[in-house]
Amino acid sequence: MLSDPLAATFARFIGAIEAEMRAVVNATAQPARFNTMLNYHLGFADEQGQPTHAPAGKRIRPVLTLLCCEACGGDWRVALPAAAAIELLHNFSLIHDDIEDRDEMRRGRPTVWKLWGEAQAINAGDAMFALAHLALLRCAEAGAASAQVVRMFHVFDETCLQLTVGQHLDLSFESRSDVSADEYLAMIGGKTAALIAAACRIGALCANAAEAHAEALETFGRGLGLAFQLQDDILGIWGDPASTGKHSSDLAHRKKTLPVLFAAERDPAVRDRYFGDPRPLTAEEIELLRTRIEHAGGRSHAEKMAEQAYAQAISALHALPPSNARESLAQLARELLNRSA
Amino acid sequence: MLSDPLAATFARFIGAIEAEMRAVVNATAQPARFNTMLNYHLGFADEQGQPTHAPAGKRIRPVLTLLCCEACGGDWRVALPAAAAIELLHNFSLIHDDIEDRDEMRRGRPTVWKLWGEAQAINAGDAMFALAHLALLRCAEAGAASAQVVRMFHVFDETCLQLTVGQHLDLSFESRSDVSADEYLAMIGGKTAALIAAACRIGALCANAAEAHAEALETFGRGLGLAFQLQDDILGIWGDPASTGKHSSDLAHRKKTLPVLFAAERDPAVRDRYFGDPRPLTAEEIELLRTRIEHAGGRSHAEKMAEQAYAQAISALHALPPSNARESLAQLARELLNRSA
Repeated sequence: MLSDPLAATFARFIGAIEAEMRAVVNATAQPARFNTMLNYHLGFADEQGQPTHAPAGKRIRPVLTLLCCEACGGDWRVALPAAAAIELLHNFSLIHDDIEDRDEMRRGRPTVWKLWGEAQAINAGDAMFALAHLALLRCAEAGAASAQVVRMFHVFDETCLQLTVGQHLDLSFESRSDVSADEYLAMIGGKTAALIAAACRIGALCANAAEAHAEALETFGRGLGLAFQLQDDILGIWGDPASTGKHSSDLAHRKKTLPVLFAAERDPAVRDRYFGDPRPLTAEEIELLRTRIEHAGGRSHAEKMAEQAYAQAISALHALPPSNARESLAQLARELLNRSA
Repeated sequence: MLSDPLAATFARFIGAIEAEMRAVVNATAQPARFNTMLNYHLGFADEQGQPTHAPAGKRIRPVLTLLCCEACGGDWRVALPAAAAIELLHNFSLIHDDIEDRDEMRRGRPTVWKLWGEAQAINAGDAMFALAHLALLRCAEAGAASAQVVRMFHVFDETCLQLTVGQHLDLSFESRSDVSADEYLAMIGGKTAALIAAACRIGALCANAAEAHAEALETFGRGLGLAFQLQDDILGIWGDPASTGKHSSDLAHRKKTLPVLFAAERDPAVRDRYFGDPRPLTAEEIELLRTRIEHAGGRSHAEKMAEQAYAQAISALHALPPSNARESLAQLARELLNRSA
């Protein structure tokens, strides 16, 4: 739950972001079922293609793009095409991740591949990837200079590549028993933090910001993304299932997250049971592992890393002149990470 | 086999195209296995990542880009990044098509998904998609004005979207028994002709061509693509297996190509046996179907359509001033389609 001021910011932006996304997705005539898959995944349609308003995530990335544009003195409206592009890119990666990870549900609904099969879902993801690029091209129509659009494409496609490198590492980790804590940090840098950093930098580019400001906002986004992922990892082991919405601990799924990897490097018992023994973990063993991971310093290390990433994010904001938007960015970071200050 | 003059043209271009592709693919540090998958699919590496020169297709699309640039008075070297982008985009779609169609072999080697699994292959295709875009951005470094690069991105990403629409239709056809000949033509328009048309238009844009010339070359590419696909369909039923390289007739796989669909609309016996009866077709039945399809006009209709598409392609070239490059384009079309004139 966001505080009232931030909720108001989101309310101000989200209608316009979603209108822009719909405009891109529905700009060309498409076969009905093809169009339905795209709108379904985005939460705009049910599986028959009828309009609906299904849960579609918090749209944090495109809101960051708009706030970063404002924080650099720009009008958030000129950043709408870029914001839509970022959110479409995020959704492309979700469609494919769901296939790759065999996830059957997303946001309480069956995933695209579960409903329409893998082949169609791979292709629908590819379509979303193309649409993300077409969305970014609309910046030119919204008044951005061509040179500025080319700069945005550089950031956008370098980020796409980083996403795939991150996902490659994540998929590789599943079959490996020797993943290091450093490799894990490289993976989430690509898979999670790169896109959030790009959302921020591109927002700055929309405002024709000075490079120092664009870089500061990219650093803010990267720190926020890392801190958010690390917090998610900590909650996945020690969080209250009722409030995280997860049915079971990440430990039961043998997820290789920072606390576990850090502990496995220090406590052979953690390493052997988690990586060396394929039998399913009992509830009792999960409890024992949780304790050992904590004793080996896995929790405090992850907390320290999250703390550092958060501090870097907040500190980067100081490079920008004070503004309501800058304050909203800091506030958003605080609230996403449940910080009191 | 190409004639000597065309073989010389290909020899002149292909080394430079492949050098540009390698430069893009290997521009950033990547995990070894990730980089191997990309280079393996492109024919540059074996599955251990060792350099090799495996069959990698004829590279017709990027050669078209360079010839179209020349035909509009440009230096083919400035079109190299765009040519590499087109070939990388084509290869992205092949990686995903192989997964979607469950094809285990491509150009005599196991497909990426067969070697590294589906999840990694989906992701490698996504990486190739991002790299295709990064390749196109190198046009700016090769001297293209930003406005020109933005125009190329429009063509490029509209084409990506058309590819996915074409593939969606193709996948949908598999489970349908009521595909019309018109729907088939729409499908190959997206799946095959759109990218060849784009390869030609983008070549023209690299030369800063007048819109009339760019449009003429796009029309040339679309006609060539359609004619080529239709000829492939005809050979898939009536061709000599020894020279087509196909192990068995398209009929055995119940492929829905134009000759069959046209005949099925006219001969209920074709329709019922092909679509209504799931039992595998015997060699005798295939022979009988082949004859009935021909009698119902399926072959002559497809030949007529291919003929028309070819004539449109050749006729479009007349909008351009005479040049060696224009003659090479006409010659390439003739030879690809085995025309004597």
